[in-house]
Amino acid sequence: MSWEDNLRKISPYVAGEQPKIKGRIIKLNTNECPYPPSPDVARALKELDPSDLRLYPDPEYTDIRLALSEVYSVPSNRIFVGVGSDDVLATSFMAFFNGQRPVVFPDVTYSFYRVWCGLFRVPYRLIPLDSDLKIDPDDYKGEWGGILFPNPNAPTGVLMGLDRVEELVKSHPECVVICDEAYIDFGGESALSLTDRYENLLVVQTTSKSRSLAGLRVGWAFGSEKLISCLSDVRNSFNSYTMNRPAIACSAAAIRDVESLKRNTGMVIKTRERIASALSEMGFDMPESSANFVFCGRKGTSAQDLFKALRNDGIFVRYFPGDRTGERLRVSIGTDEDMDEFLKFLGNYKGD
Amino acid sequence: MSWEDNLRKISPYVAGEQPKIKGRIIKLNTNECPYPPSPDVARALKELDPSDLRLYPDPEYTDIRLALSEVYSVPSNRIFVGVGSDDVLATSFMAFFNGQRPVVFPDVTYSFYRVWCGLFRVPYRLIPLDSDLKIDPDDYKGEWGGILFPNPNAPTGVLMGLDRVEELVKSHPECVVICDEAYIDFGGESALSLTDRYENLLVVQTTSKSRSLAGLRVGWAFGSEKLISCLSDVRNSFNSYTMNRPAIACSAAAIRDVESLKRNTGMVIKTRERIASALSEMGFDMPESSANFVFCGRKGTSAQDLFKALRNDGIFVRYFPGDRTGERLRVSIGTDEDMDEFLKFLGNYKGD
Repeated sequence: MSWEDNLRKISPYVAGEQPKIKGRIIKLNTNECPYPPSPDVARALKELDPSDLRLYPDPEYTDIRLALSEVYSVPSNRIFVGVGSDDVLATSFMAFFNGQRPVVFPDVTYSFYRVWCGLFRVPYRLIPLDSDLKIDPDDYKGEWGGILFPNPNAPTGVLMGLDRVEELVKSHPECVVICDEAYIDFGGESALSLTDRYENLLVVQTTSKSRSLAGLRVGWAFGSEKLISCLSDVRNSFNSYTMNRPAIACSAAAIRDVESLKRNTGMVIKTRERIASALSEMGFDMPESSANFVFCGRKGTSAQDLFKALRNDGIFVRYFPGDRTGERLRVSIGTDEDMDEFLKFLGNYKGD
Repeated sequence: MSWEDNLRKISPYVAGEQPKIKGRIIKLNTNECPYPPSPDVARALKELDPSDLRLYPDPEYTDIRLALSEVYSVPSNRIFVGVGSDDVLATSFMAFFNGQRPVVFPDVTYSFYRVWCGLFRVPYRLIPLDSDLKIDPDDYKGEWGGILFPNPNAPTGVLMGLDRVEELVKSHPECVVICDEAYIDFGGESALSLTDRYENLLVVQTTSKSRSLAGLRVGWAFGSEKLISCLSDVRNSFNSYTMNRPAIACSAAAIRDVESLKRNTGMVIKTRERIASALSEMGFDMPESSANFVFCGRKGTSAQDLFKALRNDGIFVRYFPGDRTGERLRVSIGTDEDMDEFLKFLGNYKGD
């Protein structure tokens, strides 16, 4: 018997590359917002008293919950906050997916879902997207241990309408349904309003994308009191203080500044529409995106080769090998200048 | 079948109160350092560019690992960093305690250990401290799924000598041994040097206490490459980016400022010795503390009543109900002024 026998063997999630190379880099690979966060974040950062860092942060991160409560009109006991939406989702796996039945999610989706199933030993089943790369609620018939999907979906960018989300939640009272809305601010309608009526619906959002705060690691969930209280119990059994003082102060400030959110997402959406048209004109095909990225591919062009060629030129996009995903690239929407460089590269690209 | 059937039922850890009352508060209940962190923390905070917050943080938190590597002369692939030592310990439970045999730890110790066993469904057994409230390695004979103890122990403050730690690690090649050194800088000798020789030893430390950064949530582990790589795999299967940009910048700065660490811990130790003498003179009994708190009780004085009376006067200390713990109070070492107020209160205290 050796200590090595008890180590956990797992295949971790592989995040998009955070390039450390020198020289020109156009970073369109991890769906960050190209614009700086709300100026109120700078102010909150400046107002932080470094000597207060000696004290533990508020374990109930009251400031963040108050800000969310004000902006989204949700009582603060129906809000849970974590270290980015990944932390919220991981905690949800522990909190909600403890049955024998498999948890289900789309075959083409956020690849971390599978990793969490592996880590927490949760059985799962993949439900294929339809031929238009859409989630069809009819394909989810049956009784499950949980249902989980991003809306808009990633890496497709495809939005499911609120009526269809409701259909899914309503027809699955046997399990918790998680609507992962990391990209909802780029053109979708949130399922938040449904959490008033469906106790088993959890809606997860983040400051990382639309609020330009990927570097701060703050995400949250809206849900019924029961779901939120279960999440909090799990969190308090893992780490009592997850949100540090800078994260609390800066994210609360960013959440309250709804104008900056609208302005930044508006600019991203405008650029996205322009790029989608330009890509179509160049023969690229992509599902309509409601996110801050497009998922584009072209018949006769190897996505993997294009990915490598772009990378060699300092343009980082995301390539997901695999059956349907491997035909396309996921390209985050950057500034107009960044995107023009990307288009210029494509215009000159001849393949191998 | 209802969604509620799959919720996880657990009893979370209860942290020391973070008082929100107005008026005079003397906070001696969560072992925070009474002195501000290194001035380099203020500098690092000021130098943070808020617009960089739009980008994900370095997932390998290179700056923190480099700082630790420099200060402790440990290669950076033998360092793991988390959101406080609680996050490091929780991740260690998932990474290392996956066998059938029980994990063992002292009966009087950090109460979070039991909570993690509950959360991760790890079987455990408590090994009683000896009559002097000491950990005796001879009591750990047998083969276990893991061994875990704070050194100095909490809430006793009692330090185990390095030779005895080595004895324990050496005689248990069947499991990972975790030496939780949250309080080591207040007078103990770290087991770090042993990690060169024992692949199954993990040494966990934190910036929360001795570096006055409880509000920043940064802790780490030193261990063999194998242990660290397993921890990283688990972390990357839970949340790719746990350390936000302010945490990385500020903790790296604090770790490098060894002078501030020495000065602050020196002041705390000096106050602790004075308070220990004063308490003894007042008839209180306590094991010799090598931490930033004392664990004191007095025959004929109800610890619970004293706890309540102190709280009514705005003096917060920690009371742990239970067999041996309930006879004493854990009192964090504050400034000399704070401690004089505490002593003054005791001098006037008559009981109920």
